[in-house]
Amino acid sequence: MWSSPQIQSWSMEPKEDMDMEKSRVLVIGGAGDIGKHIVAASVHLGHPTAILIKEFAPSDIIKVQLLNSWVNSGASLLKGDLFDHESLVKAIKCADIVISAVGPHQVAEQTRIVAAIKEAGSVKRSVPSEFGSDVDRLHTVDPAVSLCALKANFRRVIEAEGIPHTYVSCNSFAETYLPSIGDVTAIGAGPPASKITILGDGDAKAVFVFKDDIATYTMRVVDDARTLNKILYMRRPTNVVSHNELISMWEKKAGRTLQKVHLPEEEILKWIEEAVFPLNILLSLALSIFARGDQSNFDIDPAVGVEATS
Amino acid sequence: MWSSPQIQSWSMEPKEDMDMEKSRVLVIGGAGDIGKHIVAASVHLGHPTAILIKEFAPSDIIKVQLLNSWVNSGASLLKGDLFDHESLVKAIKCADIVISAVGPHQVAEQTRIVAAIKEAGSVKRSVPSEFGSDVDRLHTVDPAVSLCALKANFRRVIEAEGIPHTYVSCNSFAETYLPSIGDVTAIGAGPPASKITILGDGDAKAVFVFKDDIATYTMRVVDDARTLNKILYMRRPTNVVSHNELISMWEKKAGRTLQKVHLPEEEILKWIEEAVFPLNILLSLALSIFARGDQSNFDIDPAVGVEATS
Repeated sequence: MWSSPQIQSWSMEPKEDMDMEKSRVLVIGGAGDIGKHIVAASVHLGHPTAILIKEFAPSDIIKVQLLNSWVNSGASLLKGDLFDHESLVKAIKCADIVISAVGPHQVAEQTRIVAAIKEAGSVKRSVPSEFGSDVDRLHTVDPAVSLCALKANFRRVIEAEGIPHTYVSCNSFAETYLPSIGDVTAIGAGPPASKITILGDGDAKAVFVFKDDIATYTMRVVDDARTLNKILYMRRPTNVVSHNELISMWEKKAGRTLQKVHLPEEEILKWIEEAVFPLNILLSLALSIFARGDQSNFDIDPAVGVEATS
Repeated sequence: MWSSPQIQSWSMEPKEDMDMEKSRVLVIGGAGDIGKHIVAASVHLGHPTAILIKEFAPSDIIKVQLLNSWVNSGASLLKGDLFDHESLVKAIKCADIVISAVGPHQVAEQTRIVAAIKEAGSVKRSVPSEFGSDVDRLHTVDPAVSLCALKANFRRVIEAEGIPHTYVSCNSFAETYLPSIGDVTAIGAGPPASKITILGDGDAKAVFVFKDDIATYTMRVVDDARTLNKILYMRRPTNVVSHNELISMWEKKAGRTLQKVHLPEEEILKWIEEAVFPLNILLSLALSIFARGDQSNFDIDPAVGVEATS
């Protein structure tokens, strides 16, 4: 059980058989949606990988199984918590790279990670929890603006404190948008039966990347000197596609044609205002992605960014 | 956003186009591991389905997408919380059947659901969060004994309060045990390369059911008079298999043979004591399932139980 003396045997030290040539990785928020993929990619690429685990009900068999699968894959579990400074410092001292994949509740709380990194003094790279569009390049309205401001503000904290970092701008999760062929009003409902909603003219390019690929790209380049203090954009040409192109690809494959309903910007804006939760949030994000092309409407400035596959 | 007036338009009433001949279902804990399957099965089987949703960060896009997918599938979202009695009563008043799929932290807190059901006065069936072995028929040691006692104790509360109920004893999640061919020490590591650990002689029969099937069986029979105040056992003959049989099936399919390492009971018990978290929890559960056959070592007494597919 959690509180038994057995916990003492959890390794805070890298395992003997680990590849010590590879950077040691600590994942905070490893049990979350994107965190699980990061842990898997890190282990797969041979990084000595540890996951910070906070106390939870041992009767949570689903979580027990997840932890057991990590142990079986060769990862280390470190008991600790974002809100326990000492545990955080202790865990971070064992790592070269700290990846935060904390949930949205804790984006602002990542200042605690910054404080611990400063005290530990040994971290070579820190990745804050972003995993979306470049939060400094969004052109949309609330609620999305307020949500992304949290992440943008945290970038300023990292920069002010001089923490070596990489920001991961992986753009859109393919798992979210592809099943409904990019129809944001139909997320979870599968491909539209006959009619598809297109925000704007449908020609703006969006970027869709699967979570496994996001994690693999991230872990492959996170200790590369070329990504130091840069934004890591995931924008491989094959992943960049307009809504019209996406629909056309699907129509060819499915052998049927959808009726296209285009919404001009003023209608989208009105709809966002009127839409009830949770659609209003999705629509204000989609305005940026699908109508305004914020994932592709700028060239990557080599002074601040680098493309992941380049 | 969550706190905007838009939330007022969330439907607390069944939708117009719902099939009013079907029982109205409220799921508490619908966003959890088994809860998601319950919601999907309930909607799929045509039940007017509502999910109790508590406040969360609107920046949790993963959750926003899940809620949106429910809305798209025809389910209703009801804002409320286990710890807000008034919201719970209001939600329960709109339901004939209340399914709890709350997480392990909240098993004991389900007394709050009981209190709300008593006040609402209209519930015809209540399902507490169990979804495992029959908690009154386990023969194992700690930590598993203490964990399952929580669920067993809650059965006594429901019975004492006279709440019409069905207990779902679905036995083992197939998703947990089948990938490692029933080797509990290798959960998450896939099929063993050469050697497989067998608890006991391997002849005790366990029951493996996929979560989708668990949810479908549950929703199919939960408003049947034959399951009232009964334990619903999922024990279809095709799902009942010994560890030896499971290994043999896999060996035939994979075309190779595994070395079998049998652990006698005294060694298992010693290992549970010595094992570190999280393996100790899994082993003490597995002792019951694989060595002692607690999912199949009794005949179903028609006075207290019924098999789901019968």
